[in-house]
Amino acid sequence: MASSVKGIAPKQVSGKNRRVVIVSARWNASIVGALVEGCRKTLLDAEVHPDNIVHVEVPGSFELPFAASRAIQSGSVDAVVCIGVLIKGETMHFEYIASAVSQGIMDLGLKSSVPVIFGVLTCLTEEQALARAGLTEKGHNHGVDWGLAALEMIAVSESL
Amino acid sequence: MASSVKGIAPKQVSGKNRRVVIVSARWNASIVGALVEGCRKTLLDAEVHPDNIVHVEVPGSFELPFAASRAIQSGSVDAVVCIGVLIKGETMHFEYIASAVSQGIMDLGLKSSVPVIFGVLTCLTEEQALARAGLTEKGHNHGVDWGLAALEMIAVSESL
Amino acid sequence: MASSVKGIAPKQVSGKNRRVVIVSARWNASIVGALVEGCRKTLLDAEVHPDNIVHVEVPGSFELPFAASRAIQSGSVDAVVCIGVLIKGETMHFEYIASAVSQGIMDLGLKSSVPVIFGVLTCLTEEQALARAGLTEKGHNHGVDWGLAALEMIAVSESL
Amino acid sequence: MASSVKGIAPKQVSGKNRRVVIVSARWNASIVGALVEGCRKTLLDAEVHPDNIVHVEVPGSFELPFAASRAIQSGSVDAVVCIGVLIKGETMHFEYIASAVSQGIMDLGLKSSVPVIFGVLTCLTEEQALARAGLTEKGHNHGVDWGLAALEMIAVSESL
Amino acid sequence: MASSVKGIAPKQVSGKNRRVVIVSARWNASIVGALVEGCRKTLLDAEVHPDNIVHVEVPGSFELPFAASRAIQSGSVDAVVCIGVLIKGETMHFEYIASAVSQGIMDLGLKSSVPVIFGVLTCLTEEQALARAGLTEKGHNHGVDWGLAALEMIAVSESL
Repeated sequence: MASSVKGIAPKQVSGKNRRVVIVSARWNASIVGALVEGCRKTLLDAEVHPDNIVHVEVPGSFELPFAASRAIQSGSVDAVVCIGVLIKGETMHFEYIASAVSQGIMDLGLKSSVPVIFGVLTCLTEEQALARAGLTEKGHNHGVDWGLAALEMIAVSESL
Repeated sequence: MASSVKGIAPKQVSGKNRRVVIVSARWNASIVGALVEGCRKTLLDAEVHPDNIVHVEVPGSFELPFAASRAIQSGSVDAVVCIGVLIKGETMHFEYIASAVSQGIMDLGLKSSVPVIFGVLTCLTEEQALARAGLTEKGHNHGVDWGLAALEMIAVSESL
Repeated sequence: MASSVKGIAPKQVSGKNRRVVIVSARWNASIVGALVEGCRKTLLDAEVHPDNIVHVEVPGSFELPFAASRAIQSGSVDAVVCIGVLIKGETMHFEYIASAVSQGIMDLGLKSSVPVIFGVLTCLTEEQALARAGLTEKGHNHGVDWGLAALEMIAVSESL
Repeated sequence: MASSVKGIAPKQVSGKNRRVVIVSARWNASIVGALVEGCRKTLLDAEVHPDNIVHVEVPGSFELPFAASRAIQSGSVDAVVCIGVLIKGETMHFEYIASAVSQGIMDLGLKSSVPVIFGVLTCLTEEQALARAGLTEKGHNHGVDWGLAALEMIAVSESL
Repeated sequence: MASSVKGIAPKQVSGKNRRVVIVSARWNASIVGALVEGCRKTLLDAEVHPDNIVHVEVPGSFELPFAASRAIQSGSVDAVVCIGVLIKGETMHFEYIASAVSQGIMDLGLKSSVPVIFGVLTCLTEEQALARAGLTEKGHNHGVDWGLAALEMIAVSESL
């Protein structure tokens, strides 16, 4: 598996018998799609059973924490990965969505015992988003990192 | 139904037997009005019964989360759509209202099991707001997206 | 009663048998005083009994949410209006107070069933504050709006 | 006692039989020290018994809310004054500490019934901090205001 | 032990019979590593038994509060030190992670009775981070301060 180009040494943790929910937003669908696939492939490579990867779509990134919360309440999930792509536009929509979503995912993790991975790109340009989804020549698919992070955080959570 | 021009593929979900509360602020009334109508029409098109669309008005956007919270406490609502229009003015009012409202709606969704849609435009100019309410030539009425999002999130919530 | 010049159509709701607490900060006393009077007169005009308007002073705007919280805990209040005037100074005090107070009032409303009106001006100049307290020629006293908002939100809260 | 030069009329409230905890950070020790002394002297002048002024030191301003929380949990405190001095540096440390501390003190007050005074200077220069600690010629010691605010807020809290 | 060059007089508190969890992120590994070692050495110098220093790694700084929360839930920890290094990049990732992590650590401390030290550098350049990890000529290792802060806060917490 490709190592990250951004300075983090990935950690391989087995995904056997793990159940992971990927929640993704539909805005900027092609970029989100690549990130979801990167995450899913990473989970499969780590031996998560295909039936144990549940993919849930929501309209936009603002809905990610709510869906993650509902998935956790359902009781049969070891980790949630929230994937979205926010790109700065003309209004201040980007800023308020990004702030509320990042704090919402943080709060959700703190009040539950299930790790929730922050897989939301907050980019100033579309080019930045493409690069972070592995869709440019020198790009790297961050979905890979988020899949690894999910499995690692399950292990960390159990070790404590 | 018109598809969004902003990169999200709308998802059609039936609204049969759903009950949706629309809470809207009265500031910038003509723009909010168009957004509310766009949302309401979308819900009706999706077969939400007219009696099951409850419209509540509040003075300003700051009051949206409180009214949404009260609606959820009433127990007979499947989703809430909060609609408001904030436009940057001379003071810092815009920034603090927008920040508190976006975080408030996020928090409300996380502590309840009812999806609360963030339908608040945070614009730097009135022109931006008009375009996002479908009131300019190339504009698109985001109220349509919020109506669809409400129905989709009810379905997501039930599926988890 | 004067209508707002800022694009909101005021809504008249009877204040009979309502009990409203006004909490105000003492910083920028003359401006705050005008806002408190505007709010109080509006409540009286709407037939709130003078004995049912309780005015509590706190030192600064940071103390507004705490006093409002205590008022709500006392159990005999239908709405709280928090009134303060923050004006940008040399340090970053303005920004951190404004942010914490706006979020604090939002959180308080969400965790109680009593509406708490955000009557805090967050101005970059004293002139802006004077105008929003009706103390300049073309100014408008926002305290009027906050009084109306309090009564309207009580009605909204009861209707849900 | 000197009146504030910053537009607030101080309010004298007796401190008899009151118990106040002052929590202060050690960064920028000489400035913090002057603020703590200004606060303590004010409390003594208002007849708080010296044994009822408890002073707790913590390393930095980030630790203020935690120590205040622990003091409140101990059950024998009428008010807490959190005193710290943050000065803008090269990194973004100032911004994130100031934001988390101001929100933390706000949240703590809202979830307890004990007033917690925000006595944290958020300055862009050391000169600004010195002036607000009364250490420049025209400066004013804000610790005085915070001591008065603590006693006033105890009275406000009891009156509600 | 070297004293801080940044204006805080370190306070020596015995670490005997204390149990401290260090949670660190793997991004910017060499800088984080120096900070962790500075913290660990400080704890050992203060007579914390090596078996009572538990080191947990997480992928990135966003995961620090969750892991700290889990450590506290395990029940056998006197303090947690969260160590990470965030450096401003091209996107807004830095801002949203830093904000959510600082608020998350604050919230965690307030809802538990265990001190959680904020050991996250929020730097605009790599050079700034190196200096604060003691990896430049005039630098100072902040991990030392955080270790001291952990032991001091345990003592403060017990004294209240």
